[in-house]
Amino acid sequence: MKKINTSPISGAQELLPEAAATFEKLKAGISEIYHKHGFLKIETPIIDRCEILLAKAGGDTEKQIYKVSKTAEASDSADQALRFDHTVPLARYVVEHENNLTFPFKVCQIGRNFRGERAQKGRFREFYQCDADIIGRNNLPLAYDADIISTLLDAYASLGINTPVLARINNRNIVNGLLEAFNLEEKSGAIFNIIDHAEKVTLEVTKQSLEEEGLESDIVKKLLAFIEIHGDRKKAISDLKNLNIENRTFNLGLSELDTVLDLLEKDGRSGSFEADMKIVRGLDYYTGTVFEFNLPEYKKIGSVGGGGRYENLAGYFTDQKLPGVGGSIGLTRLFYVLNENNLLKSQTEKPLDYAIIPISENEFEFALKVARDLRADNKSATTVLTDKKLGDKLKYAASVAKYGIVLGENEVRTNNFEIKEFN
Amino acid sequence: MKKINTSPISGAQELLPEAAATFEKLKAGISEIYHKHGFLKIETPIIDRCEILLAKAGGDTEKQIYKVSKTAEASDSADQALRFDHTVPLARYVVEHENNLTFPFKVCQIGRNFRGERAQKGRFREFYQCDADIIGRNNLPLAYDADIISTLLDAYASLGINTPVLARINNRNIVNGLLEAFNLEEKSGAIFNIIDHAEKVTLEVTKQSLEEEGLESDIVKKLLAFIEIHGDRKKAISDLKNLNIENRTFNLGLSELDTVLDLLEKDGRSGSFEADMKIVRGLDYYTGTVFEFNLPEYKKIGSVGGGGRYENLAGYFTDQKLPGVGGSIGLTRLFYVLNENNLLKSQTEKPLDYAIIPISENEFEFALKVARDLRADNKSATTVLTDKKLGDKLKYAASVAKYGIVLGENEVRTNNFEIKEFN
Repeated sequence: MKKINTSPISGAQELLPEAAATFEKLKAGISEIYHKHGFLKIETPIIDRCEILLAKAGGDTEKQIYKVSKTAEASDSADQALRFDHTVPLARYVVEHENNLTFPFKVCQIGRNFRGERAQKGRFREFYQCDADIIGRNNLPLAYDADIISTLLDAYASLGINTPVLARINNRNIVNGLLEAFNLEEKSGAIFNIIDHAEKVTLEVTKQSLEEEGLESDIVKKLLAFIEIHGDRKKAISDLKNLNIENRTFNLGLSELDTVLDLLEKDGRSGSFEADMKIVRGLDYYTGTVFEFNLPEYKKIGSVGGGGRYENLAGYFTDQKLPGVGGSIGLTRLFYVLNENNLLKSQTEKPLDYAIIPISENEFEFALKVARDLRADNKSATTVLTDKKLGDKLKYAASVAKYGIVLGENEVRTNNFEIKEFN
Repeated sequence: MKKINTSPISGAQELLPEAAATFEKLKAGISEIYHKHGFLKIETPIIDRCEILLAKAGGDTEKQIYKVSKTAEASDSADQALRFDHTVPLARYVVEHENNLTFPFKVCQIGRNFRGERAQKGRFREFYQCDADIIGRNNLPLAYDADIISTLLDAYASLGINTPVLARINNRNIVNGLLEAFNLEEKSGAIFNIIDHAEKVTLEVTKQSLEEEGLESDIVKKLLAFIEIHGDRKKAISDLKNLNIENRTFNLGLSELDTVLDLLEKDGRSGSFEADMKIVRGLDYYTGTVFEFNLPEYKKIGSVGGGGRYENLAGYFTDQKLPGVGGSIGLTRLFYVLNENNLLKSQTEKPLDYAIIPISENEFEFALKVARDLRADNKSATTVLTDKKLGDKLKYAASVAKYGIVLGENEVRTNNFEIKEFN
């Protein structure tokens, strides 16, 4: 009988061993892809100073941050908190170690972040994010934007998801330029927000929202037409040119988008990405390329990752200009929604290769040797050392391993044994 | 110019990419060994309820714990804290999921724990621990104590340490029985503490400390002789028998120790372990076997890991008896002391296999293809997409990769290229 509530805290992912093994495999898959694409793996501390974490945070972040409290021993822990993403600690890391890093610095971080969000199904307060970033010093060519998107596409491909993953790409300069051309810069926050939500509501609602901002019906019409633009490079670029927007920022964005899409085509990614004007990304630090990953056959799931270009990673920490581009896969949420929708290729493998079952203590020595030999041959092997009946031992063995090896007097004497495959 | 202090918090390990890669390799090595020995990997949340974390903690733990504070959004986060070890969350996990686990449950956890200890060189507040545990239901044969020690010995062997690692093993029942025989149960706390520190002080100081506890000189003499006992199975068991202690607990401990040492001999571990009466382990939850790992050629470093048998993992959480045995490698501290003492076999490998260097944008497409092919062949490859001079690109390439491939017009035309090995 339990004496106490032993459930994990609300908003934490706690997996049984089999699911934990699958999750671990996905994490390892992403890690391997990031490595293969040339990203160096680092870890930043989970606890950081509020001065760093909140250097630029808006109201929401501040509300969601987990502060850690001063203890008697560590009295200098005042004003420390848990990191809520990997980007802020990375900015601190790059500034701190700038002289020991080689730029462009291709770096990845796979670890847990913490946000005290309101608890609800499928929302996590403690969650894995798998970030890949490329940081330049003074400048960073646009080709790296495509590099990040390709890398993340390969990472998704490694997960064994039963449905296509689509990268949807935009460039903030296009939207900003459009709003400049329409003299709507002052309303850009509200309009970004409306575009960001356009997918979740009907066209009529989006129209109303734009009208409520006091926009003329002609402009509303043009904006609605704009946010519908999406498709492959040729179609999207042509549709955007046909808007006949005379604005420097707009044309810069168009040209940047064209370059990124062109490189992705050259990298053989056609069919797994498109341009999409609905993608603006809420967070305000993106300055050029922005992108999101979706499962087009499961629109309800929404974004399963994304990222973009930030012209200055660490402006709050240093005068040195450090432009970057990065993307992130929210693995805990992704794992949750993939399981909810049954979208993971089945992974019902037993966790171990072999279980060695000595019939009595007399066979322990031989059992240990057999296990040692198997491990030296790169197999996993557990020895069943309980004093249960053979039937119980076999049942246990079959639950953890693909193959069983029963060892009795005969096997020891003849130094020979059978390998039994469990179902 | 920095605008702000960007150092990590005191007590955190923050590594440059090269050292991070080495650390990652050690972590992966331990993880692989645990898997090969049949341990299933799980993760428990970093944040847990104080009610769980402090169920049995003593004063020190309570002082060192990092509490996380209530935020506006997550108002139910009151009375939550960061886990300070893996054992308490494991106890909660096993009780919570008991009906979905197979016993003996061989389980491992590799992750960060948090203690707000006083900051000092080589002490960490945020540190990796690599735990392996075996939990039984109602009972757990002694053979599993040897299984844990063997597993940890293999884990240390995987790290590439330039000096031998020795497992020093004892059994709490031996010491408890001895104190019973001497009618010293009431002073056992103080005497355990003196034994625990005996290694760090002279024999004379230990003698004084025992005398200060008011022990008769005859008893002091016997205790001093006792704690000097160490060596292989034959020698240690014989020395202990020669003490002629008539006590049930003592003899139980002796027999248990004998069994564990015997199994380790049978598992071919002779030379890498010994019995040692100085090993008692401070934490009070151990009940039988206790062990520590040391580097005998570097005594000053002290323990680099340890563990033991606990007769009841989760007595505070459930009435179900769950005996276990577990061990832990404190990897962050170990990595620190190994580097301090230059004890890690050199790992100066470049992080990546290939850097592909297109001379101009005209060769980007070919460069992307070459990189893709290499990755498909399981190599890591980065494309150098900067617009720098070739010399600068080569310098960058040589700093991150073992091999470089320069691609110009000719290479594209002939679909052929040279592979250059960097120094």
